[in-house]
Amino acid sequence: MIDPLKSPLLTDLYQLTMLQAYFEQGMTETAVFEFFVRRLPPNRAFLVAAGLEQALTFLENLRFSDEELDWVRASGRFSKEFPDELADLRFTGEVHAMSEGTVFFANEPILRVTAPLPEAQLVESRLINILNHQTLVATKAARCRLVAPGKLLVDFGMRRAHGAEAALFAARASFIGGFDGTSNVLASSMYGMPPYGTMAHSFIQAHDTEEAAFEHFGTAQPDNVTLLIDTYDTEAAATKVMQLAPKLKARGVTIRAVRIDSGDLAAHAKQVRAILDAGGLKDVRIFSSGSLDEYTLADLLGRSAPIDGFGIGTHLDTSADAPYLDCAYKLMEYAGTPRRKRSEGKATWPGRKQVYRRYDENGVMTGDILTIEGDSQTGDALLRPVMHAGKRVAPAESLADIRARCTAGLQQLPAHLKHLANGPTYPVTIAPALQQMAQAVDRRTTPN
Amino acid sequence: MIDPLKSPLLTDLYQLTMLQAYFEQGMTETAVFEFFVRRLPPNRAFLVAAGLEQALTFLENLRFSDEELDWVRASGRFSKEFPDELADLRFTGEVHAMSEGTVFFANEPILRVTAPLPEAQLVESRLINILNHQTLVATKAARCRLVAPGKLLVDFGMRRAHGAEAALFAARASFIGGFDGTSNVLASSMYGMPPYGTMAHSFIQAHDTEEAAFEHFGTAQPDNVTLLIDTYDTEAAATKVMQLAPKLKARGVTIRAVRIDSGDLAAHAKQVRAILDAGGLKDVRIFSSGSLDEYTLADLLGRSAPIDGFGIGTHLDTSADAPYLDCAYKLMEYAGTPRRKRSEGKATWPGRKQVYRRYDENGVMTGDILTIEGDSQTGDALLRPVMHAGKRVAPAESLADIRARCTAGLQQLPAHLKHLANGPTYPVTIAPALQQMAQAVDRRTTPN
Repeated sequence: MIDPLKSPLLTDLYQLTMLQAYFEQGMTETAVFEFFVRRLPPNRAFLVAAGLEQALTFLENLRFSDEELDWVRASGRFSKEFPDELADLRFTGEVHAMSEGTVFFANEPILRVTAPLPEAQLVESRLINILNHQTLVATKAARCRLVAPGKLLVDFGMRRAHGAEAALFAARASFIGGFDGTSNVLASSMYGMPPYGTMAHSFIQAHDTEEAAFEHFGTAQPDNVTLLIDTYDTEAAATKVMQLAPKLKARGVTIRAVRIDSGDLAAHAKQVRAILDAGGLKDVRIFSSGSLDEYTLADLLGRSAPIDGFGIGTHLDTSADAPYLDCAYKLMEYAGTPRRKRSEGKATWPGRKQVYRRYDENGVMTGDILTIEGDSQTGDALLRPVMHAGKRVAPAESLADIRARCTAGLQQLPAHLKHLANGPTYPVTIAPALQQMAQAVDRRTTPN
Repeated sequence: MIDPLKSPLLTDLYQLTMLQAYFEQGMTETAVFEFFVRRLPPNRAFLVAAGLEQALTFLENLRFSDEELDWVRASGRFSKEFPDELADLRFTGEVHAMSEGTVFFANEPILRVTAPLPEAQLVESRLINILNHQTLVATKAARCRLVAPGKLLVDFGMRRAHGAEAALFAARASFIGGFDGTSNVLASSMYGMPPYGTMAHSFIQAHDTEEAAFEHFGTAQPDNVTLLIDTYDTEAAATKVMQLAPKLKARGVTIRAVRIDSGDLAAHAKQVRAILDAGGLKDVRIFSSGSLDEYTLADLLGRSAPIDGFGIGTHLDTSADAPYLDCAYKLMEYAGTPRRKRSEGKATWPGRKQVYRRYDENGVMTGDILTIEGDSQTGDALLRPVMHAGKRVAPAESLADIRARCTAGLQQLPAHLKHLANGPTYPVTIAPALQQMAQAVDRRTTPN
């Protein structure tokens, strides 16, 4: 059986077509490709790098199974020799990358692959597939965290993520961006993230009364009771919770929180808070959900809604207001010669590049320099070797460490970049050395 | 090893929490859940149902592996008995559904699950996860097909789809919506769809001249040559193609098409068409790509761009202008009693429902009736039994048959629904029998 999550056939047909031509022409010298974002999406002042771990796993395990080679043979699209060449293909190259959780900007490579041309080419489609989505979600999560510091933020998006892997990627990336956990059980188990959950409307509806549903749920989960109170009438249900609490308490069941999932969340939260407080339930938290994102969070908190935690789903997992990055994985050098594409609106900076980041005396970021490797600049060099000869140079980082890096990075952002809307952009300067290289490449490749 | 694409742990934690309570309370009577869309997304006049095949496969194979049960035990969140109950759990219920490729509208169920409450509850998250994304993409693809009849349309979106499964789902769903094939090799092999591919800019850049790249590519793929001409200067490259064609022809290589991926596609296509025609290459097709969707297709074709085919990627696979459905899977009946949720803005119609569709004398759809099962109406009943006692009642439909159903459905749409923007909505009438049932449910569940 072909495993879709690992298969090298999860790629664009033209990668295989080009590979055959490369092999036929003996074009197997060293190529350098870089992954970067051309332009930030609307309302994004920064991005958070995520997905490197899955990218490296993909590269380390790259190989064609017999079944996959059979497909290549049976397709009738390739030469007789090609499947044998694919059978021997492994990823043997170098990778430099920004660490996951690093804040980055347009035109800055976050991943550089240096490998024989066929290897570096083949992996393009899947590398973009992995990095694009996780970076989107980590960024969206970081924006939520910036507007809701100190609040419990939980990924609720599994059901409307685009398929199984998207749900896993989103849970992981949201944790990197600063979320506290996920409702996704498999993600929790795979990544060691805290799982969170409450109850669904169907649970209430399946009972004849809300009281019976609350009581049954409490008894089944005495240590972890969050009751959903908006199935019929939110405030009436809050009153029932208040009345039920002493009875449950006597049976060892403590109500931890209530969840509101519809209507004007701020208005309901204020009324529910008053009902709970009046009933002596000051410790019962209010948790909220329902079409939330960073914009609605900012609105709710701006209206002083007494909400302690948020389940954020659809808009997070799909990065709904920016569901894709204008990103690319482009050839920057082949056989020792820098290269660039000059297509209208899509021109790239050539050569192997490095990004340097500078800070002021308070540790606030002041600007980045994009330059060619070897053109040493002051500041922190953000691209570091992560893979050598097809193997990781260090064990995988813990998700907690990656998350801490993102938290620190958000603190170092200039204040005006922490806003949700477009504002002045962060300065990324193109170093003279890189500009000169681009001009030299253009002189070489411009048709006479 | 847990397979993320099949694991029942790919669910929300609350499903497991509720299941334990259901088991404890002996609440295992028959439940009826329906999947439907509350409101159509912006600019959508209709939706195309897709994903049923993967949904049924998921239900047929539902079971907890030992490793998955170990996680449940080790989590410390559940009773000692619960893992044993999960070990025995299979999906034993009935499913009624609209056939894939059927056009549908807001409030109309496209899938109904009738099963013991724990089974029907557990599968909620993954069923939504499967149906939401494929329906989005099939709909987006159908919109592209409506504005570009007769054009070659190819899914190019794998790299920016949200993970591996999203790329596979999108390829399949785009074919249902009327696309001709995909660049995604694995999708092509899994679903038997035609694969398409051209070449990347990196292939051009890796060569010292465009001419050398074109020649090498042609030699490697003599039967299937599409040359990418926008790496440096589109019209200059078209001239090179014209000059190269006779030389390649003499070696048995026929240039089939050129691809333009940047700039003003209509303007470039007109100039390139003129260059090719002047050079006697009237049979060489022009293929275009680059941030395309149904809106840009309509614009290009409205400007009479001489483009024969389109590669549509990012916007298709992510359904970028509408990356999620306001969809739900809600309890409609339990233990023989109809149920409804009345949350603000999210109220549902109770009971087991059926959708009847009526047509005029020309076969054009005139309106749907949403009613309760058993309230027979004139018109075609759209929900049919597809699974009995946990097993499919018929073999999987071929993708070609599903695609043909969608094609036919689009032809039956009233003309005003074939436009890209919002217009008058299609009439979906709530039958008196269903309205009466909703009132009866409200009388029963309204707190006194």
